[in-house]
Amino acid sequence: MASDAVGRLKVAVIGCGLIGQSWGLVFARAGHHVSLHDMTPNTARKARDDILRRIDAQVGGASSFDGALSSRIEVAERLCDAVGDADYVQENGPERLETKASLTAEIDAAAPDGAPIGSSTSGIPCSAYAVDTPGRARCLVVHPINPPHLIPAVELAPAPWTRPDVCERADAVMRSVGQATIRVNREVEGFVVNRLQGALLNEAFRLVAEGVVSPKDLDVAVSHGLGLRWSFMGPFETIHLNAPGGVAQYVERYGPLYHRIFGGDAQTWSRVLADGLQAWLESEHPPDAIAASQGERDAKLLEIWRQRFGNGRNGANHAG
Amino acid sequence: MASDAVGRLKVAVIGCGLIGQSWGLVFARAGHHVSLHDMTPNTARKARDDILRRIDAQVGGASSFDGALSSRIEVAERLCDAVGDADYVQENGPERLETKASLTAEIDAAAPDGAPIGSSTSGIPCSAYAVDTPGRARCLVVHPINPPHLIPAVELAPAPWTRPDVCERADAVMRSVGQATIRVNREVEGFVVNRLQGALLNEAFRLVAEGVVSPKDLDVAVSHGLGLRWSFMGPFETIHLNAPGGVAQYVERYGPLYHRIFGGDAQTWSRVLADGLQAWLESEHPPDAIAASQGERDAKLLEIWRQRFGNGRNGANHAG
Repeated sequence: MASDAVGRLKVAVIGCGLIGQSWGLVFARAGHHVSLHDMTPNTARKARDDILRRIDAQVGGASSFDGALSSRIEVAERLCDAVGDADYVQENGPERLETKASLTAEIDAAAPDGAPIGSSTSGIPCSAYAVDTPGRARCLVVHPINPPHLIPAVELAPAPWTRPDVCERADAVMRSVGQATIRVNREVEGFVVNRLQGALLNEAFRLVAEGVVSPKDLDVAVSHGLGLRWSFMGPFETIHLNAPGGVAQYVERYGPLYHRIFGGDAQTWSRVLADGLQAWLESEHPPDAIAASQGERDAKLLEIWRQRFGNGRNGANHAG
Repeated sequence: MASDAVGRLKVAVIGCGLIGQSWGLVFARAGHHVSLHDMTPNTARKARDDILRRIDAQVGGASSFDGALSSRIEVAERLCDAVGDADYVQENGPERLETKASLTAEIDAAAPDGAPIGSSTSGIPCSAYAVDTPGRARCLVVHPINPPHLIPAVELAPAPWTRPDVCERADAVMRSVGQATIRVNREVEGFVVNRLQGALLNEAFRLVAEGVVSPKDLDVAVSHGLGLRWSFMGPFETIHLNAPGGVAQYVERYGPLYHRIFGGDAQTWSRVLADGLQAWLESEHPPDAIAASQGERDAKLLEIWRQRFGNGRNGANHAG
């Protein structure tokens, strides 16, 4: 099966708290069949009602689906019934190692061979919770950003023993529901998303602690500043378009400042540039097209500005 | 004059490269009178044409202004003519200490007493370039995020000798043109915005250097993930709404993870919480209203999702 061509699947959602509900919505919205299970039956049933209601709100009426939407979301009283014929399992159990380990083993015992078992955990690596699972080769972390039905990115973090074809399969399932995938090649604490968030938070707390800025103004620096560009381009693309000569020039100009503050080193940054960063960015935005790409960026910023800030003539009381 | 009630002002824009042009647009768009000066006269004249053209594109036709828009933007051949009757001066000279120092002194000699002189510099502190300026008490850094006519946030970074009323006045001018202000209380390298960007970049380069993630996937983590929330709320508000008990609970849960990775310490974070962060966030979103605030956050995310990703039924080929 080509990884981009995933047909209608049977997906089991195990654990139906806020994250499980949101996942259920994601899979149902994309046309898959969803089986919901929670240790307490009422939780899954309530999740099903919530999903139907929220799909209605999100995509303009459940009636825009064929009448089968409702029949495509079912509640399984027993875990084995939920996963017994699943093509993919998304586990959203409590963030406790022992609980997750036993839940994963239970899913593994009941799910068909080869169905990937993805965990929503943000903090427990697969190599910890799946170490004793017989089918650990089909286990991996599939970590959403809250809430997944509104934030379409997901981290895939396999254990060293996770089979590559399982990763590919989970990646294809995620793309089939519109989630962009971030492949985490090695298990590191916080994976990628929380490490990036944590780096920014750590500096934010430091700046406030040292009296440089108030918490409120610090938030403004992101909500009215950095976050506008980052809502449609990543940090690397952002700096590539922030120097007329592209990312290499940006690193030459600003790298020393950042190294003085954060203790990174120029050798590492140069190696990252040479090992693929510069080639990738220049394939997206060739050096002689950077001005044009800046124009495209500004057109997107203009859309955001109009929607959030533009009232025709913002500003002075006596504009005219 | 109340800081929020700034009437129509005479603003001098000194240095008309990309940043100066963008500033000219910001001031003219808000109804102020703008005088443009550049060391090379054709640069200022070309900037004026660009500003008129871009205002037209941005706010739906210069004709929506009264016919006086064109007459409100003038070109001054001599610096002293540009700043001679200015209420506020925005300086956008080259990023060289000596040049900026002499340019600031020249502006100071010609501008009316009390008119703040703001510099767009991203890297040279006011205490360095204005140290020998007689009127240094009215000098401060007014650092935009590129491009200022589309990204409505600005950092105000005074020197130790800058008069508080000058900061207040510059703050009022900025708010009169729709720029949210970030008050930088102490001169630190990179001010606030570039320090936050740098912290995230430093971790981004590290993760790629260590083979954890590809540059492309790292960018996805922001452009399809973290950046969506950050486009309308800052990092502190984000974490306050990411735990049912608010920011204190978030810090309790995730602080240790971040301290292990980045070497921050729990005492500092606790002190920041106690010194105002928690009180401010709870005044914005009281503990018993966090669920409601999460709902408002999700409504904003839904708007973004619809505009960028929603096609009714994104996802599987066989949705229905």
